[in-house]
Amino acid sequence: MPASTRVPQQERSRATQARLLEATVECLVEHGWSGTTTTVVATRAGVSRGAQLHHYPTKAALVTAAVAHLAERRAEELRTEAEALPPGPQRLDLVIDLLGAAFTGPLFVAALELWVAARTDRELREALVPLEARVGREMHRLTVALLDVDERRPGVREAVQATLDLLRGLGVANLLNDDSSRRAALLHTWKRQLATLLTP
Amino acid sequence: MPASTRVPQQERSRATQARLLEATVECLVEHGWSGTTTTVVATRAGVSRGAQLHHYPTKAALVTAAVAHLAERRAEELRTEAEALPPGPQRLDLVIDLLGAAFTGPLFVAALELWVAARTDRELREALVPLEARVGREMHRLTVALLDVDERRPGVREAVQATLDLLRGLGVANLLNDDSSRRAALLHTWKRQLATLLTP
Repeated sequence: MPASTRVPQQERSRATQARLLEATVECLVEHGWSGTTTTVVATRAGVSRGAQLHHYPTKAALVTAAVAHLAERRAEELRTEAEALPPGPQRLDLVIDLLGAAFTGPLFVAALELWVAARTDRELREALVPLEARVGREMHRLTVALLDVDERRPGVREAVQATLDLLRGLGVANLLNDDSSRRAALLHTWKRQLATLLTP
Repeated sequence: MPASTRVPQQERSRATQARLLEATVECLVEHGWSGTTTTVVATRAGVSRGAQLHHYPTKAALVTAAVAHLAERRAEELRTEAEALPPGPQRLDLVIDLLGAAFTGPLFVAALELWVAARTDRELREALVPLEARVGREMHRLTVALLDVDERRPGVREAVQATLDLLRGLGVANLLNDDSSRRAALLHTWKRQLATLLTP
């Protein structure tokens, strides 16, 4: 088979996967874990059941791939957005705002659906635990890079960790209500503390 | 009907309710929202379906009553435990440890199951939103009382809020893994910061 027909097929395959993964995250956000079925996702993505099962044979495989895919895309977007930020003392505030938006966006909501469901679903938990650890490490590294701080300095690692744990708590507080004005006030104070903790 | 038979009946009724509510929380912790059915709860509590429906006609009514009941009991326990703490500079650390345990215990896990389920379940959300607001306010007030601080001082309200949001984030981080050693290290640093923020 000539290369010219193989490449488009690989591309079609990648496009099908991307459509399935994005439909999965949308489905988790709209209908939650129990309302997300592989059939609903296939229909939403406009992909046949056969093609779906070929790429992702189980619901656990589909949802973990979806969260991994979106986490990578989101990290890429955060890097791009952070590159566009002006340097200077305002940078820390703007980075925290970007992260605050990430922890209240669709990826966070979809991931939380999976974390909670995985507590009582062994198959999902086994697929999710390694992914959660990897995404957690990458989020930590990304935050260190965005804030442009040196983790070898005492206190920096702890300050970054506390920021991410605080943002996770704020993400949960935003689940049922728009908590944005309380969150903005709280993060305003946190930014001042963090600036002190991170300043050599 | 003489008072002597009415009172035992009220007591039996209260005991039945308490058994149902405690079985509900246990069920949410073990089986999650979708695995918690009113039938499973009634069996677990050793209560007839008729008696259960008499007290709590819907699943939403049962689970919100269960979380409200356990939140009250837990607040009572926290007050009692805090009263037994020695006064002095160690008190803040010990209060944070008590709160850290509360945010990783069964009530937190059961409440999180409901918050996440309520996102995509209108009936549950309508029952839960007012309860979440009330429990949130009471938790804030209780924390202020346990720390024995004056909220009218600038910064105290924000420091208490940040502590509770951080603890919520740490509770979620503990869902699939035992995160206790990372949490202890992080809270160790947080206690020092909080002591500074709360000191007049």
